[in-house]
Amino acid sequence: MIGRDLLGIEDLGRDDLERILETARHMQEVGLRDVKRVPTLRGRTIINLFFESSTRTRTSFEIAGKRLSADVINFSAESSSLSKSESILDTARTLDAMAPDAVIVRHKVAGVPKRIADVLDAPVINAGDGAHEHPTQALLDLFTVLQEKGRIDGLTVTIVGDILHSRVARSNVYGFRKLGADVRVVGPPTLLPAGVEALGVKAYSSLREGIEGADVVMALRIQNERLEGAYVPSVREYSAAWGLDRAKLRFAKEDAIVMHPGPINRGVEISHDLADRRPSVILDQVRNGVAVRMAVLYLLTGRAQPAYGD
Amino acid sequence: MIGRDLLGIEDLGRDDLERILETARHMQEVGLRDVKRVPTLRGRTIINLFFESSTRTRTSFEIAGKRLSADVINFSAESSSLSKSESILDTARTLDAMAPDAVIVRHKVAGVPKRIADVLDAPVINAGDGAHEHPTQALLDLFTVLQEKGRIDGLTVTIVGDILHSRVARSNVYGFRKLGADVRVVGPPTLLPAGVEALGVKAYSSLREGIEGADVVMALRIQNERLEGAYVPSVREYSAAWGLDRAKLRFAKEDAIVMHPGPINRGVEISHDLADRRPSVILDQVRNGVAVRMAVLYLLTGRAQPAYGD
Amino acid sequence: MIGRDLLGIEDLGRDDLERILETARHMQEVGLRDVKRVPTLRGRTIINLFFESSTRTRTSFEIAGKRLSADVINFSAESSSLSKSESILDTARTLDAMAPDAVIVRHKVAGVPKRIADVLDAPVINAGDGAHEHPTQALLDLFTVLQEKGRIDGLTVTIVGDILHSRVARSNVYGFRKLGADVRVVGPPTLLPAGVEALGVKAYSSLREGIEGADVVMALRIQNERLEGAYVPSVREYSAAWGLDRAKLRFAKEDAIVMHPGPINRGVEISHDLADRRPSVILDQVRNGVAVRMAVLYLLTGRAQPAYGD
Repeated sequence: MIGRDLLGIEDLGRDDLERILETARHMQEVGLRDVKRVPTLRGRTIINLFFESSTRTRTSFEIAGKRLSADVINFSAESSSLSKSESILDTARTLDAMAPDAVIVRHKVAGVPKRIADVLDAPVINAGDGAHEHPTQALLDLFTVLQEKGRIDGLTVTIVGDILHSRVARSNVYGFRKLGADVRVVGPPTLLPAGVEALGVKAYSSLREGIEGADVVMALRIQNERLEGAYVPSVREYSAAWGLDRAKLRFAKEDAIVMHPGPINRGVEISHDLADRRPSVILDQVRNGVAVRMAVLYLLTGRAQPAYGD
Repeated sequence: MIGRDLLGIEDLGRDDLERILETARHMQEVGLRDVKRVPTLRGRTIINLFFESSTRTRTSFEIAGKRLSADVINFSAESSSLSKSESILDTARTLDAMAPDAVIVRHKVAGVPKRIADVLDAPVINAGDGAHEHPTQALLDLFTVLQEKGRIDGLTVTIVGDILHSRVARSNVYGFRKLGADVRVVGPPTLLPAGVEALGVKAYSSLREGIEGADVVMALRIQNERLEGAYVPSVREYSAAWGLDRAKLRFAKEDAIVMHPGPINRGVEISHDLADRRPSVILDQVRNGVAVRMAVLYLLTGRAQPAYGD
Repeated sequence: MIGRDLLGIEDLGRDDLERILETARHMQEVGLRDVKRVPTLRGRTIINLFFESSTRTRTSFEIAGKRLSADVINFSAESSSLSKSESILDTARTLDAMAPDAVIVRHKVAGVPKRIADVLDAPVINAGDGAHEHPTQALLDLFTVLQEKGRIDGLTVTIVGDILHSRVARSNVYGFRKLGADVRVVGPPTLLPAGVEALGVKAYSSLREGIEGADVVMALRIQNERLEGAYVPSVREYSAAWGLDRAKLRFAKEDAIVMHPGPINRGVEISHDLADRRPSVILDQVRNGVAVRMAVLYLLTGRAQPAYGD
């Protein structure tokens, strides 16, 4: 049974994950209709409380809420440091007093959604907090793999790139592990967290070894500041060693799919050609994001309401 | 009978105030439902025309409009000086031509909502103009006191802080006076307007004297620029002399409540402990703000429509 | 039959224009109702993808979408140069994957809406691209003239000002020509495109000659940077030679109307007195903009739906 909030995949059980993915399958069907709207959350208020700018995730949640007939309020705040967390909590409490049915929080500091959830009546959904978790991203990745492969159990999933700073990587490691996949992480040693194996993954510094036999290869976005900093010799070298292209992909399984959470740095993490065509499923991930977020909103706020009626 | 616009509490009669508060009582009930939405303003268009940034007031109006099923359009403009008021009026006229049913205006210059109302077909609601008025804030404060005390007539209400620059203070002085309360203002002499007694209030420079026997103590937000300027010796001294805490509150009536329009400067105008717990009712004020704004929107735009049906 | 996208008036036939204008006539009626909302596009998602800031056009499309019961998502992006067009296309593809029913694009570079349309499933509506086209502006201008004059065929329409940089002028030249009007352009020689007569218009550098006998005089907005640059000697000289006022208007037909796409520079392109009163129809243009955009949204996205029902 999914809890009151959705703060991370780490907190969820296999049953929770399966229930969300099953619900998303129904929600996906709504997005295929001519009238892409069900009355499930009519009269519910959802607040997008984004302390870090985001357009795609915010838009995905907004569309998800509106397809469920909820009223969606966007509330963007300046990026805010931990030292100001007092006022963040007051902002959150103020919004909570307006009786929202869910508050979606993004913040560049890990743990802020949890701190907000501790003082709010409304359920809190973490839309990304620092390098901690981005649970709905992992859910849409799980959903996408399930649609492509028909199962997750027993698959080999390789995550490539800046594992150290990636909330997407962390959430996906938890999610794929809980559903029975073997997870590998690959990247330059400077971008692999020390002791990452404690999460139940195998770590590789050779891309070829890391993706050998993989069913799923997931490239991560690398922030420009990493490329110019001490982590990586140069963009060119990063791309040569860790950027995905069709040649390198031959080491994976023949029917392997390629994923990326976006936005992509073309020619850095992934070649143009690969980004735009199968076996990459990047736009399917985006498409599935709306369905998965509809499922999460429904499960957290849709008490005693019919789910899929029209 | 409430007029075409809501520009200030000064313009309203006792009957107007009572009618708005009575309507808000019905609207409050909508916010307690599972489906927090009535069709009252379906097909009506409400424009939030904010020339001064605001998140809580804008959000409160947006939620209020959506709970009445109105379409709410947010239109944020750069802060604009009086010298540009020509283009402000053209902007307002342009929006008016799109046939909105209400335009909500915030501007840092006193009188701009009135100037806009003079040229618009749509009713204008003042959401705060310079140091002039913030009528819906006063209405939600009146509503909150009425809910807490069962009456306003005969109460003693003390407003503490930067009276000079506060539109919240002005609107509340008008509102509480019209409904029969005794109103006192307290603050450092530099922050009390000369001749404030002409508004029918008693002015105090001693906090203890000002709150002695008060039923309601309302702290105002003090802007940081006042604290660093010529008005106040220092934050520490301001807080020591004018900041509310439980010790100072003992001079008020035993069942006195504490209010603040937010956002609060914790430890300056009000102690942490007092801000977060009774007798402070700060989050009730926020909650009631949605109901009061629903009432105002309904009364100004809801001609010939059933008010509370579902 | 109107095509999949609306990228420019140049692409449309006379039948397309007439169909849009006829549909707008029905939509206009919706805006006069107490409940200004029809269920035509219920469950459709419309994305405002604005790379160039705009408040009036964005708001007009948002109101148009909401009056048709569509869900409207605002997505503002920083102004972006052609060199970044890769990431613009990725942004557009990402939004497209969320299954919108229409994407409205504004960009300061000519041709970007077309490039986006080439990769999108959803219909694209150009809301202004560089100095290329602004088709819905021309449509609302055509609609306004049709309402005022009862016909377009055989009218003389004079466009005054910065023809060189104006997407409004280009779209209007195409539109009025296709519907049978004689079109003249007037302005300082520096602001008339070389070879403009190839578009089927007559070019004048004398305002008096240009508006002599005109049924419609349309002033264009002149950007401040043109007034301070090499194009025009000074604001005063521009205004004296090209600014419209009642005295100069006497050379036009007695019942000539005056138009302007807004926002106006009062006292530069048009005198205060003329801007605010007949024969200028500037606010009618704005009003009609909502109806015309409703028509365009309906025709591009409303397949197999009743158009005007309630």
